[in-house]
Amino acid sequence: MIEAVVWKDDHLEIIDQTALPKNKVILQLRTLPEIFEAIQKLRVRGAPLIGICAAYGLLLGMKAEHPQSPEDFFSLLQQKADHLATARPTAVNLFWALEKIKNELIEHQDQTCEALMRQLHKAAVDLHADDRQRCADIGRHGIELIPDSAGILTHCNTGALATGGIGTALGVIYAAHQAGKKLTVFADETRPLLQGARLTMWELMNAGIPATLLCDNMAGALMKEGRIDLVIVGSDRIAADGSVANKIGTYSVAILAKYHQIPFYVAAPLSTFDTAIHNGQQIPIEHRNHREVAIVNGMAPIAPDGSDCWNPAFDVTPPALVDAIVTEKGIIYPPYRENIEKML
Amino acid sequence: MIEAVVWKDDHLEIIDQTALPKNKVILQLRTLPEIFEAIQKLRVRGAPLIGICAAYGLLLGMKAEHPQSPEDFFSLLQQKADHLATARPTAVNLFWALEKIKNELIEHQDQTCEALMRQLHKAAVDLHADDRQRCADIGRHGIELIPDSAGILTHCNTGALATGGIGTALGVIYAAHQAGKKLTVFADETRPLLQGARLTMWELMNAGIPATLLCDNMAGALMKEGRIDLVIVGSDRIAADGSVANKIGTYSVAILAKYHQIPFYVAAPLSTFDTAIHNGQQIPIEHRNHREVAIVNGMAPIAPDGSDCWNPAFDVTPPALVDAIVTEKGIIYPPYRENIEKML
Repeated sequence: MIEAVVWKDDHLEIIDQTALPKNKVILQLRTLPEIFEAIQKLRVRGAPLIGICAAYGLLLGMKAEHPQSPEDFFSLLQQKADHLATARPTAVNLFWALEKIKNELIEHQDQTCEALMRQLHKAAVDLHADDRQRCADIGRHGIELIPDSAGILTHCNTGALATGGIGTALGVIYAAHQAGKKLTVFADETRPLLQGARLTMWELMNAGIPATLLCDNMAGALMKEGRIDLVIVGSDRIAADGSVANKIGTYSVAILAKYHQIPFYVAAPLSTFDTAIHNGQQIPIEHRNHREVAIVNGMAPIAPDGSDCWNPAFDVTPPALVDAIVTEKGIIYPPYRENIEKML
Repeated sequence: MIEAVVWKDDHLEIIDQTALPKNKVILQLRTLPEIFEAIQKLRVRGAPLIGICAAYGLLLGMKAEHPQSPEDFFSLLQQKADHLATARPTAVNLFWALEKIKNELIEHQDQTCEALMRQLHKAAVDLHADDRQRCADIGRHGIELIPDSAGILTHCNTGALATGGIGTALGVIYAAHQAGKKLTVFADETRPLLQGARLTMWELMNAGIPATLLCDNMAGALMKEGRIDLVIVGSDRIAADGSVANKIGTYSVAILAKYHQIPFYVAAPLSTFDTAIHNGQQIPIEHRNHREVAIVNGMAPIAPDGSDCWNPAFDVTPPALVDAIVTEKGIIYPPYRENIEKML
C-alpha cells in the first residue's frame, strides 16, 4: 500500500500529490512553513492526512525553537497551532489533531522542555499510527455495506493518499476487495482539481481493482443505466445533525443517488465529527482561487481570459440524503443526532 | 452577433470551435469530406448547426460530381446524404436537414441536372436562413419564461455557435437580455469537451451578459444557495413522449432542479422532435473516444495512462423532469405526447 507521508525522524517525506499521476515526486519537508505550504497548496490533502501533517508541522516548528521554560514552550506551541489551523478552513481533522496534541502535552506540563519535546514527538507519531488503525477499522466495519459484485461510485480521493492508512471510503473498498468481493469502481473525476481522475484512479489501478473514470456530470446517466449499487464518499466535517461537508459535488451525487434509490454512504473517522456545529449551514466552506476552475491541471486556460468563476471547495449534504456513516467504532444509522451522540 | 458558419457561394467558412476561446480560427471548407470531418471532430457542433453544415456538405459533394441524368443525380444525392448521416448519431437535426433537402428536390425531379443543382443550392441556403428565423422565434416565445433579475443555469453551448442564428436556450437568454431583463447566467463548464467554459462563456462575455463559470459538479450547491431561478438547455433529439436527449450532464441537472423545485426548460426547434421515437430508451446515444475524458482540451492527460473511461456524449432526460419546451411555434407544456403532436 502506498504511504502518502512517511516520518523520517527529523523530516517528513511526502508524495507531492499535485504532480500525480504523471510524476511521483517525493518532497522532504523540514520546516513548519514547508508543511503549511504543502497543506495549503494541496500537495498533501484529505482530511485525516491534513491532521497528520499538521501534527508533524507542529513538531518541526517547535524543534526550530529553544523554549526556556514550559510556559514558553506552551506559548510557542499555541502560536504555531493557531497558525497551522489557518491552512485550510473546512476539514475539522486539522483542528482536532492540533487540539489533541496540545491536550496530551498539557498533561505533562510539569516536565522539562526536553521531556515536552519528546512527548510532542511521540504524540505526532502516535496520531499517525492511530490513523492507520482507524482506517483499518473503518474498512472492517464498512465491508458489510458492500454486496458482492457491487458497482460502486466514489467521489474525490479518500484512500491511502488521503489518510495515514488505507483510507476512509476507499479504505472500505480496499477492505471489501481484500475480503474477496468482486467490485467495479467508478471514479468521478472530481473537478476542479481532479482528485478522482488523478489520485483515485492511480490508487485503484495500483491495487488492481477494476476502475472506470467518468466526468462528474455523467454520474446521473450511469446510475440510470443501473450500474451503480451504492455510493461511498469521505467527509471533511460532520455536524451534530449528520450534515456532511465533503468535496464539492458530493451534494449533487447524494441527490442523484436518492433519485435513483441507490444507498449513499459516508466513511469517516470520529475525529471528523464536530458536535459544536449543530447543522450544515454552520460549516465554513473554503472558496478557492477561480484559476483552479479556469486552468485545468496547471495547463492552458479552458475559459476566456477574465472569466468569472465560482469555486467552492466543499458542499454540505443534508442528513436526509445519507443512508449510513461508517466510523472506526461501527456504523451510524439515522436518526443521526441521537446516534452520533451515542457513538461519540 | 457571431456567425458560426458563413456560406461564401462556393465554400463554407466556419469558426473552428475546437480552437476557441484561445484562437478564433476561420476554416474554409470546400469539399464534402472536409465538412464531414468538421462535424465529426466537433469543429462545428450544436444540433441545428450540424444540420446546416450537412446541407452545405451535400451541396459541395454534388458540385464535385457530374451527374448525367436526374436518376444519376438522385442516386448520388442519396449516397452522399447516407454518408453524411453517419457523421454523428444522436442529433436528429442532421437527418432532418438531409431528408428535408431530398424531399424538396424530389418535387423538382423532372428538371435538368443543372436546375436540380440550383435547387439544391437554394435549399441549403434557405435551410440556413430559416434556422436564423427559428432561433429568433424561439427567443421571442421563450422570453415569458424568464423573470426579471433571474439567475439562469445553462449547460453546454446552445447559442450562435450552435445554430444559424442567436441560438436555442442561449437564444432565449439573448432575447430576454435584449428585452431589457437583468440576468445573471451561470454556465456549467460541460465536461468532457468544455463547451460551456469555452464557448458559452465566450459568447456571453462578447454579448456583455453577466456570466459565471462553474464546474458541472457545483450546480447542486449553487441551486441550494438559492441563486438559480431556472435552468434552460437545448436538445439534440426529443422523442414523442417528451424525452429530451441532450449533452451529457443534462439529466443530472434536471434531477437537481427538480430536487430544488427550480423550473427546468428546454429550447429547441421543431426539427428536434423525432416522433418515430416513442420514448427515451430508443434514442441512440453516441459514445466517444475515452481520450476526451482523460485528456482535457488536447493537453496533458489528467488520469493515469491506460485508465478506463466512460464517455457517453449525451443523456436522456425523462419528460417528468421537463417543465416546458420552447419551440419556434410556441411553448409546449405537459402532457407532452398529446401537446407535441398538436404542435407538430
